[in-house]
Amino acid sequence: MRGPRPSAMTIAMHAYLREPESIYARSFALIEAEAGAALAALPAELRPVARRLIHSCGMTDIPTDLAWSGQVVTAARNALECGAALFCDVEMVKAGIIRRRLPAAVEPSCTLADPEVPALATMLGTTRSAAAVELWRKRLNGAVVVIGNAPTALFHLLERLALWPERPAAIFAFPVGFVGAAESKDALIAASPAVPFLTLRGRRGGSAMAAAAVNALWDPQQ
Amino acid sequence: MRGPRPSAMTIAMHAYLREPESIYARSFALIEAEAGAALAALPAELRPVARRLIHSCGMTDIPTDLAWSGQVVTAARNALECGAALFCDVEMVKAGIIRRRLPAAVEPSCTLADPEVPALATMLGTTRSAAAVELWRKRLNGAVVVIGNAPTALFHLLERLALWPERPAAIFAFPVGFVGAAESKDALIAASPAVPFLTLRGRRGGSAMAAAAVNALWDPQQ
Repeated sequence: MRGPRPSAMTIAMHAYLREPESIYARSFALIEAEAGAALAALPAELRPVARRLIHSCGMTDIPTDLAWSGQVVTAARNALECGAALFCDVEMVKAGIIRRRLPAAVEPSCTLADPEVPALATMLGTTRSAAAVELWRKRLNGAVVVIGNAPTALFHLLERLALWPERPAAIFAFPVGFVGAAESKDALIAASPAVPFLTLRGRRGGSAMAAAAVNALWDPQQ
Repeated sequence: MRGPRPSAMTIAMHAYLREPESIYARSFALIEAEAGAALAALPAELRPVARRLIHSCGMTDIPTDLAWSGQVVTAARNALECGAALFCDVEMVKAGIIRRRLPAAVEPSCTLADPEVPALATMLGTTRSAAAVELWRKRLNGAVVVIGNAPTALFHLLERLALWPERPAAIFAFPVGFVGAAESKDALIAASPAVPFLTLRGRRGGSAMAAAAVNALWDPQQ
């Protein structure tokens, strides 16, 4: 052997997949091997979304906590292909959505940083996340709503849907955490708001899952 | 009773916390009740970060998978207070960092969308996430690195740290997923790169946790 012997670390450093297509293929093969039965039990249109949700968080038990109504994937896809609004509760969800996959006319929007929101929150006695939902109303009819952080945004949306005539085309609901997350998603399931939805029961959720659900709608890997 | 009787749904809709301070207080009380012992076993400077990590994902078993070296929290805080660079592997991490908590001079940056990156990735035979690390070099010395998505970014950084003299001040490593995530974090732990780090063993991780670690550095709640 010539030259310095590579250290064990150097060897280990070189023993990983670097080719994006191979990484994706191997990831989805592992997901299929570990969660294939749970995925097969889902409606066909939900399977690519469930795979992407698993992929986004590294946890294969996601399918057991999924709840949905209607044909949420078809409804969201059709709405966005017609140029519907795409509302996100937080900037992280917006940042996680892969724009080039979306129909050209679709621009994800997040109203949380709108200058009207702090005063609205004070007036309504709620969080800024909930108040930001007020600003969706003008384009809420036929829109796709993606909630990846705030239980209060989902609760507020449900309250407004009980009062407003506007109906979004689809709701992807993934609030996360200890206070209100599980409860807001249970409330969505119980409310059955005549809007197709997909949600994840329990405390788990988050912006990466919420964005993954949208990214799965036109997934070239599946 | 006057007027229409509110439906069960309306009543349920009103039974949630809407006041941000109360939501935080209740969240952190639940975290303390469920994970207090595991948190108390951590070094004191890591506890606020571990609480925020739990809070970001809704899972109280996070502390058992944490691994670290040195005084990573103090090192990161000091570096950023001196205006260090703050490198994020993906835009989602950057979007999740609460800017107003950071020292005024700190601007999180993400080089993934830099126009040089696709050609660099081709040249180096690796992913764009790994190639984007090349563009950190000029400001890597004393920087804080936050990886919330790509195992290849962490692997590539470890390879470069074995060659380059530059040393970041701290590494927060939370790649997520099925291919390389656990392995890249194990490689970080094994490499002991003479840089304080915090990481989460296994497949779990993600941009929300990575951003939460930074947000915990100056956490007004704790």
